[in-house]
Amino acid sequence: MALGEFELIRRYFAVPELAFAHADVVLGAGDDGAILALPPGFQLVMSIDTLNESIHFPVNADPFLLAQRCLLVNLSDLAAMGAEPVAFTLAISLPSADELWLAAFSRGLATIAQAHQCPLIGGDTTRGPLAITIQVHGKVPAGNALLRSGALAGDVVYVTGDLGDGAAALWWLLDDARLDHSALDSRHIDALQQAFYQPDARIGSGIALRGLASAALDISDGLASDLQHILKASASPALGAVIEESALPMSPTFQRCIPVTEQVALALTGGDDYELCVTVPVANEKAAIAAMKGLGVRFTRIGYIDNGEGIRIKTISGQQHPLSLKGYNHFSESRQV
Amino acid sequence: MALGEFELIRRYFAVPELAFAHADVVLGAGDDGAILALPPGFQLVMSIDTLNESIHFPVNADPFLLAQRCLLVNLSDLAAMGAEPVAFTLAISLPSADELWLAAFSRGLATIAQAHQCPLIGGDTTRGPLAITIQVHGKVPAGNALLRSGALAGDVVYVTGDLGDGAAALWWLLDDARLDHSALDSRHIDALQQAFYQPDARIGSGIALRGLASAALDISDGLASDLQHILKASASPALGAVIEESALPMSPTFQRCIPVTEQVALALTGGDDYELCVTVPVANEKAAIAAMKGLGVRFTRIGYIDNGEGIRIKTISGQQHPLSLKGYNHFSESRQV
Repeated sequence: MALGEFELIRRYFAVPELAFAHADVVLGAGDDGAILALPPGFQLVMSIDTLNESIHFPVNADPFLLAQRCLLVNLSDLAAMGAEPVAFTLAISLPSADELWLAAFSRGLATIAQAHQCPLIGGDTTRGPLAITIQVHGKVPAGNALLRSGALAGDVVYVTGDLGDGAAALWWLLDDARLDHSALDSRHIDALQQAFYQPDARIGSGIALRGLASAALDISDGLASDLQHILKASASPALGAVIEESALPMSPTFQRCIPVTEQVALALTGGDDYELCVTVPVANEKAAIAAMKGLGVRFTRIGYIDNGEGIRIKTISGQQHPLSLKGYNHFSESRQV
Repeated sequence: MALGEFELIRRYFAVPELAFAHADVVLGAGDDGAILALPPGFQLVMSIDTLNESIHFPVNADPFLLAQRCLLVNLSDLAAMGAEPVAFTLAISLPSADELWLAAFSRGLATIAQAHQCPLIGGDTTRGPLAITIQVHGKVPAGNALLRSGALAGDVVYVTGDLGDGAAALWWLLDDARLDHSALDSRHIDALQQAFYQPDARIGSGIALRGLASAALDISDGLASDLQHILKASASPALGAVIEESALPMSPTFQRCIPVTEQVALALTGGDDYELCVTVPVANEKAAIAAMKGLGVRFTRIGYIDNGEGIRIKTISGQQHPLSLKGYNHFSESRQV
C-alpha cells in the first residue's frame, strides 16, 4: 500500500474542515493526547460507539453517508444527556488505504462536524476489518445533564420526531420482503436512506429540555426497550408506563411502506430511531411543548408513567395489555445488514 | 448465543472491580453518556487506541494479558502528556460472547484499572471481529501538559527504561528466526511476554517530569520515528538530534536474545516500547535525574538536540552518520502477529 499512516491522517483527517478550532479545545490531534478545558461550572459528557461493517452497516456502504451516520448516532447520545457538542475522537480500522473512500468519508464527517461545531481532535488509524469507533464529548452546566433516572409516577412520556423509521430503513437496506417495495417512489427511498444514514441528532431539543424533562434517553434499541431503561433507572418503588397505541407518531413513508399489521410493533420495538424519549412532570409540560415548537421539532405525548407493572399498551379500543415485544439486543438476536 | 448484551455488560464490565468510584467521575456507565467534573484549574487529556486481533495481537492471545496491554498502551499516552489517569471507556467488538474469555479479560482490565486508579466509566459492546478500542482520560494542571513541541537546540535527550524490548517481544511472538531461541530460558520468556503484554505505563515519570522536560512522547513507533515527531513539532528553525549508539539502554534479555548485529537497529527502530522519550533543558537535567531516581526508573541520556539535519547516530568509534532506518508505520509496512 502506497499511502502511509501519517500521510493518510494528514490528507483526510488533519484537515481544516474537520480539525477546526473550538473555544474549549486547547490541543487537537498530533500529540500523544488531546486537551480540553471547559469553562468553569461545566461538566464533560462523553459517549463512545462502534459501527462494524456487515453488523451495523452494509458492506460497500457509501462512505460519505456512512461517516455521517457514525457521527450522528454518537451526537444523539449527547443530545439525550442535554449536552452541547465540544469535540470528537475517531478510531478507524481500514482494510486498505483507499483514497477515494477516505476522501468521501472525510467529507461526510466534516459536514456533520461543522453542522454541530464539533471538531475532530484525535484518533487512531489502523489496519483491520472496517470498523469505526467514535467518542463524542459535550458539556453541560454542572448538575444539569438529563439522566435516565429521574422519572416519577405521573410524569408524561414524550418522543421527538417519528418512530419506526430506523427499522423501516433497515428493512429497506436488507431488502426485507415485509417492506412494500411497490409502494415506494424516489422520495420514500430518499427518506429511508436519510433515516438510516442521516438521523437527526436532537442536540437542540436535549439542551432545551434541560430542567424540564425528568428523564431522557435516545431511542436506539427500540422505544419499548429504551423506556424500560428509564423505568429501571428511575426511582423505586417500581415504576411502570402506559403507552397509547394511537398516539405513536409515524412518518408518511413509514405508513406507506410498512404493512398496517406491523406498524405498531415496529414503532414500539424497532431500533435505530435516535429520537429522544423523555418523561416530563405535568407542571413542565406546557413549557416543554413550547420549547419544542420553537425548535420546529415534532413532540408527541405517547403515554405516562405510573406505579403499574412494566409497560402496558392501551389499544385503540381502550384495552390495556402488557407489552411482550422486545427491543433489539446485540448478541442474543441476529441482525446483519 | 445465550448471553445478551446487557447481561454481558452486567457480569463482566459493570462490576465493582472495574467500575469503581473516582473523585472526578460524576456519572459512570449505564446512561447515554458518562460525566466527568475536574477540579478547578485542571484540563482534561484524552487518547484513544484500537487493537485488532491478528494485526496488533496474536489470534488466541490470553485475554487476561491482552486486556492489560490494551489499557497500558493507552495509559502510556497519558504518561507522555504528564497526565494523571481519571477514567477510561471501552468499545469492544466480540465474535461471540465467550464467558471464560470475558471473565479473564475483565480480570486483566481490573488489575490495571485498580493499579492506576482509572475506573471504567462507559463503553460499547458489539458483535464483530475481535477489536478493542480504549479511550483514556487524565488530568493535568492547566498549561502543564508535556507536549511534543517544546524541544530546543541544546536540550538533552533521555529515555526511561530500556529500548527494543517491545520489538524483541514481537519477534518472540512471531517466532522470528532472527531471535536466538536457544538463548532463552523461562525468565527471558517471562520478560518478553511482559514486555508485550504488560509494558510499564510511565505515569509517575510523566507527572514528575512536568516543568522539567521541554518535550515528551511515548515510544510506540520506534525511538527514531518518535524522536522525529518531537523534532518536527518543536521550534523552527529546523531541529536535529545526535544519538549516541553506545548510550542506548538495553535489557539483559534483549542483549541475550537479539543478535549483536541487530541490536542497535532494533533499539532505534523497534516499536511498542512504551517508554518515554523526553528532551530536557540542561538547567533541569539534575532535577530530572533526581526525580527519576526517586521513582526507581532507569533514565538514560542518549543524546542531544541541535540545529543539524535530521537524526545522526554517533557510533562507538566516534563517527556520525545520518539515520536512515525508519520506524514502524501502519499501512505502508506489513506487520502481522
